[in-house]
Formats: sequence, C-alpha cells, structure tokens
Amino acid sequence: MSELSVNHLLGIKYLNKQDVELIFQTADHFKEVINRPIKKVPSLRDITIANLFFENSTRTKLSFELAEKRLSADVINFSAAQSSVKKGETLIDTVNNILSMKVDMVVMRHPNPGASVFLSKHINANIINAGDGAHEHPTQALLDSYSIRERLGEVAGKNVVIVGDILHSRVALSNIYALKLQGANVKVCGPKTLLPKYIEKLGVTVETDLRKALNWCDVANMLRVQNERMDISYFPSTREYTQQFGVNKALLDSLDKEITIMHPGPINRGVEITSDVADSKQAIILDQVQNGVAVRMAVIYLLASKLKQ
Amino acid sequence: MSELSVNHLLGIKYLNKQDVELIFQTADHFKEVINRPIKKVPSLRDITIANLFFENSTRTKLSFELAEKRLSADVINFSAAQSSVKKGETLIDTVNNILSMKVDMVVMRHPNPGASVFLSKHINANIINAGDGAHEHPTQALLDSYSIRERLGEVAGKNVVIVGDILHSRVALSNIYALKLQGANVKVCGPKTLLPKYIEKLGVTVETDLRKALNWCDVANMLRVQNERMDISYFPSTREYTQQFGVNKALLDSLDKEITIMHPGPINRGVEITSDVADSKQAIILDQVQNGVAVRMAVIYLLASKLKQ
Amino acid sequence: MSELSVNHLLGIKYLNKQDVELIFQTADHFKEVINRPIKKVPSLRDITIANLFFENSTRTKLSFELAEKRLSADVINFSAAQSSVKKGETLIDTVNNILSMKVDMVVMRHPNPGASVFLSKHINANIINAGDGAHEHPTQALLDSYSIRERLGEVAGKNVVIVGDILHSRVALSNIYALKLQGANVKVCGPKTLLPKYIEKLGVTVETDLRKALNWCDVANMLRVQNERMDISYFPSTREYTQQFGVNKALLDSLDKEITIMHPGPINRGVEITSDVADSKQAIILDQVQNGVAVRMAVIYLLASKLKQ
Repeated sequence: MSELSVNHLLGIKYLNKQDVELIFQTADHFKEVINRPIKKVPSLRDITIANLFFENSTRTKLSFELAEKRLSADVINFSAAQSSVKKGETLIDTVNNILSMKVDMVVMRHPNPGASVFLSKHINANIINAGDGAHEHPTQALLDSYSIRERLGEVAGKNVVIVGDILHSRVALSNIYALKLQGANVKVCGPKTLLPKYIEKLGVTVETDLRKALNWCDVANMLRVQNERMDISYFPSTREYTQQFGVNKALLDSLDKEITIMHPGPINRGVEITSDVADSKQAIILDQVQNGVAVRMAVIYLLASKLKQ
Repeated sequence: MSELSVNHLLGIKYLNKQDVELIFQTADHFKEVINRPIKKVPSLRDITIANLFFENSTRTKLSFELAEKRLSADVINFSAAQSSVKKGETLIDTVNNILSMKVDMVVMRHPNPGASVFLSKHINANIINAGDGAHEHPTQALLDSYSIRERLGEVAGKNVVIVGDILHSRVALSNIYALKLQGANVKVCGPKTLLPKYIEKLGVTVETDLRKALNWCDVANMLRVQNERMDISYFPSTREYTQQFGVNKALLDSLDKEITIMHPGPINRGVEITSDVADSKQAIILDQVQNGVAVRMAVIYLLASKLKQ
Repeated sequence: MSELSVNHLLGIKYLNKQDVELIFQTADHFKEVINRPIKKVPSLRDITIANLFFENSTRTKLSFELAEKRLSADVINFSAAQSSVKKGETLIDTVNNILSMKVDMVVMRHPNPGASVFLSKHINANIINAGDGAHEHPTQALLDSYSIRERLGEVAGKNVVIVGDILHSRVALSNIYALKLQGANVKVCGPKTLLPKYIEKLGVTVETDLRKALNWCDVANMLRVQNERMDISYFPSTREYTQQFGVNKALLDSLDKEITIMHPGPINRGVEITSDVADSKQAIILDQVQNGVAVRMAVIYLLASKLKQ
C-alpha cells in the first residue's frame, strides 16, 4: 500500500506530487465517512494527539479536533494562554513534556515561521504544521486544491489567481507550492506593497489589475485582509483596497466566463468580496470548510500509518 | 411516538403544553439514567453538537456538556474569547462554517436578545437557546418547572412568585411563559425600578410586599441579583435590596405555610437568601441543578429525533 | 484486595506507608498500560471526573486529563477564568453544583492553602488535591518518589536533597512528607531567606553549601525558581541564585559520585540547572513526567474503587 514520503506535514514544500495525490484519494474516502449518519471510524483508537495552539484560532482548531475525534483518536488541547511557555519554558521542553505523557502526534500552530520545522529536528513524534507565522499552512493549501479538484475535475492546467496580501499570508505561500506542484498556472494579484520581492522566483506571475487577473483565471482565491499582520503605514486603506481588489457581483457577471471563488475565511463581507459573491453558486467557501475536515482526517491517518510501522 | 412541535428550542414562547409534557416524561427517563452507576446511553452516537458560548457561563455550559456526553454525542466547544467573531466575521458566517464541518446541533449562548431566533432563520441545524441576553433561557425554565413538578406533584394550579430583578432576567421571562403555559398562577415581586412595564400583559400580577407574596405562594423563585446587568443609578443598594427582598429563616418560619424555595444560581449568600435558607429542606436548589442535566438530555434527544426523520 | 486508608488525596500528610506502596504497585501496572499500543483501560467507564483549576496549570492539568481518559472516565474541565466564582459564589456552592450534576470525583488546584481539606469536610465526593497554594502537591511528590524507586530500586535509606525555594514550594513540602514516610534521609538547600523556620521540625536538616549537599546525596531535586511567588526584596537576584544554587555539568562531574537529578518542571534552563545537566543521562526529568500519568491513573483508580463499595 502507498504511503507518504514524509513523517511530518511541515509544509507543502516538503511534499511530492504522489503525496498530494495519496492525501486526496484518502480524503475522498473520509469525505464519504463524514457524510454518513455515523461520521466516525475506529481507525486511530490507539493514537493520542495533542493540539498545541500558541496562537488563537477558531476554524482550524475545530476542524482538526473534529478530524481527530472522527478517527477515534484521543485528543488533548493545549492553548498558549494557560501555558508554561509564559513561565519561560522553551518550546522543546514544553513539547517534550507533552510527548513524555505518551502523545503520538502534535498539531501545532505557532506565531514564529519555522517553528514546526525546528521542532521536528528535536523531538520524536509526528508533527502537523497548523500554521507557522507568515510561513506555511499546508492543510489549508491541501483543502483548497482538493476543493478545486472537486469542482473542476483536476488542478493540473488550471489558471488560479491568489488575490490580496501575499506578503503576510501563509495561505498564499502554501497554495503557491501546492498549485505549482500539481501543474496549475498561478498568478498573484494585490497592492504592490503587499507582494513579496521574491515572488516571481516561485514560478508565479504578478498581475496588479484585478479585472485582467479574473478574466485570465478559472479560480480566484480571495485572501482575507489581515489587519492584525500589517504595517499600517504601508497599506492602502480598507476602502482603497476594496475599490481595487474587492470582488462584487457586477464585476463577476461582467467577466468573459464563470469563474470559481474561494476564500479561506473568516470573510470580511464587503471588503474582499461582497455578500452576493460570498453566497453565490460560484463560491465554494463552505465546501472548502467541509473538505478541510476530510483532508485533515486523511493527513492524520496517513501519518499515523507511518507511526505504526 | 410523540414528537416536539418545533425543530429548535428558541424560547418557551414557541412551545405548546404537549411539548413541555413530552420533555418532562423524557426527562423522567434520563433522570433514572444519570442515577445509575453507568450514567450514559448510546442514543446519540451519530450526532455532533457544537456548544457556542459567546458569553461566559459555568453551570449552564457544564450541564449541557454533561447532558451531551451522557447521550454519547460528539461535542465541540467554542468560546467567544478565541473566536473569529473578533476578526469581524458575522454570526451567520461563524455558525455556517461550523455547520459545514458536519455539526448537527448548536447550543448557543449569546449576549444579544433574539440571536437564536435570528440564527434559526438563516441556518440549517437544530438550535438550542442557552440564554440570549435578557430575553429567554428556556432550558432553565424547563428545569425549574420540572423541579416544581417533582416536589409538588404538578405545576398546574400552583402559586409561584418570582422575586428580584425581573427587568433584566431571561430566567424570569422564560419562567413566566412556562408557568402560565402549564396553568400555574404567577406573581412577580421586586423593586419597582426592576419590574418591566409590560409585565401585566404577560398575565402575571405584581406584588411589591415580599411577605404578602410569600404568604400567597407555594413556591418562591429567588432570582440572583445580577449586578453586571444593572444600571447602577436606578437600583437600590444591595443592603436595601436584602432588607426588602431577601429571605432569611426567621421570615420563612413566620409564614402561614411551608413554601418551596428555588434559586437559579449562582447564589449570593446573604443577599437574595441567607445560608440557613439555602441549605434548608425547603430549598430545592441542588435538585434544580441535577434536573438540569436530565431536562437538557431530554431536549437534545427529542430535537435529534426530529433531525433523523 | 488492598485499599487506601483514605477517601481523598488531600496531602501526603494524610497517607501511611502502605498507601504509598499500594499506589506504586498500581502505578507499575498502569505504566505498562500506557506503553502498550492501546494506552487505555475501560476500568472507569462509569465515573465522571471534574477537573477544577482555579489557578492556571499546563502539565498537571494535561497529565490528569490523560490519566482520566486512559481510564475511560468521563471528564469535564472547569477553569476559574470562566467561572461563577467571579460572580461571588462560594467554593462550596460551586463544587456542590458540579456534584449535583452527578460527578464522582473532583481534581482541584486552588491558590489557597487548605482549600482541598476544607472542601473535603463539606462535600460528598472523592477529592484529589492538584496543588493548594504553597501547601501540598501530593501527586507530584508521589511521582517523584516513584521515579526515585524506578531509578534506584527503592526510596528507603536514600539521601535526597531538595534545592531551591523551600518556603513557597508545595512540591518541597509534599516531597519531604513522602520521602520521610518511606525512610529516606532528607536535606534542604537554598538561600536562608527561602527556608521556612519550622523546617527542622519536619525531620530534615539544612545545608546551605550546595557542593556539600550534592556530595552527600543520591538524588537532587532541583526546584523551579518561582518568581511569581516571591517577595522580590528578599530574594537573591537570579544571577546570584544561579551562582550559589544552580547546577552545571562541571559541578556535577566534580562530585564524588554520580547523582540523580530531578526537576518538577517547567525548567528555567540556565537558572536552576544548565541545559547539559537537564539533557544528561543523570537527569530523570522526562521520566518524572511519564510516571506522572501512571501515578495519577493509580490514585484515581484506587479512590474510585472505594467509591464503588
């Protein structure tokens, strides 16, 4: 039987094409599971998973927790607010302590880029990166690609534009890696101040005119305006942003073809997209959320299989 | 088999008499269950319930969580402190996201009156209102009536006085609806500044003299003084409140008959009631708490039955 | 079959030697369990346990939670931040409310010394003290002794020095009781300002010279510098503390024999001990953490057995 080439999910950067395909095939199975009346399988009854969230999160944490419970794993939750980290303990000590309690897998969100990679070199357990600063958010990129594949049949050859604050976005970076790996064509579109200088080295092109970008693409992934990550003096005002990079129904209807709209949530309605776009049939935003549970079940299941060898 | 006339428990206002009777008969069964050594039934193994608390709560949240676990449902908890609501997401988007993860039922506490009703019009899941601002707290009223029925045999024809801050109390409003629906006679008693102007339209009478009210009633439901909900300038001081509307043992013993004392908790000992009243055999405060788990199990079970049709 | 002499674990002070031996034998069994692929036993499927943490904690709470889940108990968590305690409710009322929901056992951490003992006199459930102010932390002392027994074969006759802030440490006090009960010889070592005046009445001797203390001992238990519990004006600075009472590898290697190093965590690396000491084979710090789960499973299991009689 197939298996992943990696022992951790630290970033899309570390996966190969077969890994992604295996995750998607496994997710197809779990998507069936979560649509049955009994949404659980007993597969991971022997696994304990710790969710370590050093940064607040709602949907990602809930999605992982549901994925874990539906695999019948034992789950313990740890949030920074109550943690020894505040008492001056190092990250490695905190995690090693938790692992000493016989925990098999760690799902970690951390504000520092590279925290998961660093940890993976020092501890003995499977690690899933649930977002590390502005670096990667691999399960988000996987569920995004999975949702494109579900809607459009495949990812290869599709034109995808990622719109918004590319500079501060782990969602953007992981999506670029994932889409390129699968043979999609990728453009980014946003204010120049929010595009990283190295962006073209990643094999993507820049388009600062939103209408042109939308007319080119099959899918537009509309990033959230993350005020909390921005240097306020550089950024266009929210009103300016919306005027230049927001999508409303009139714009959508004026395009040459019907494109698919994605958003990683939470949505600022009226900023990145208007409500009639968010709620239209072209948007697959809630499919993304549902697929998130299935994709995370797949990742956890496949990493746990390696653990048992 | 009987079923509820509603798909949600938004307020007592939306229930009919048969609904309440069905909930109580079902709660009788679950009360037996939670007094057995194994306090669980496998009934809802196929249901996932999200507890969404946009306002802090201890006992209500624990009571719901125990009720859900004892029905073997899968439970996920969501508290506002960690939520995307802070990131500007709308309530409907937050809840739709959670539902997309294949959640079947939502228990929600929210500071805004009408939040549950609003939500029920826009989403596709059973909703249980666990308190919406100063509006309703239907499971509290159900457990209160259930406790009266347990102690006095029935609710119909009984005289019940609700003492305290009626104006800001969702407990009072839900209790008035529930008691009237079941044919009890209801008086309210409290400082004039804390009685709403519309109160007599609800079919209850006002009595500002506590001794008269107590001599009339079979049951006195002593509301908690909720300093956090009050406009300080209007309210009598705590000392004045206790002098006029507090119940001590001497007052209780001086009445014409032995009445039953209820309190929704948490008690301010020495304010609404003294310790010798709270701990007396006339008080059924801890019975209320125990019945809360059984009544909530009944409500969840009956709503889930409708879901499965 | 043997059983504990107590119905609660309030402090080591209340245990006898046979109790400790019974806990350790039971922990031996559970240590095997948590090292199996399926780390669970169905023993306590009929028990509901409430974890009441009126003070923040990471490792102790996670350790108890894992212990409870691996015994298949139902677990509810309660933290002070969300509690009615803030609304002026008494501790007894809070706990009685939780017990009315049919909870069988309470694990409580509380900032006030004696809180668990006080509670045990007023409520009807098994209580485990998970730390009460500067008073006792009995499960920590049990896991410490269990770890010494595991490393050195037995506790009786061993020389143990506890280094650091003895005055503010519940770990120190519970360890002194536990070690003396089992026949170990105990010294304490630390700044004079951090040694309680009654210390010699507990049957321990004081040694202010760290090198002498280490040359005497088989085991050194290096307490954490707890800045949050100290009166700043009295305490030596951190740098002074480390110079006089910190252990580094050079000091360790210069001793007459190889001693065992313990630490209750979280470690301030470079303060109480340097990293090369913490990570050396002489340190059993992560064994302590692992044993914590097994010892807590044993305590919970044995108290629950008494409950079922």
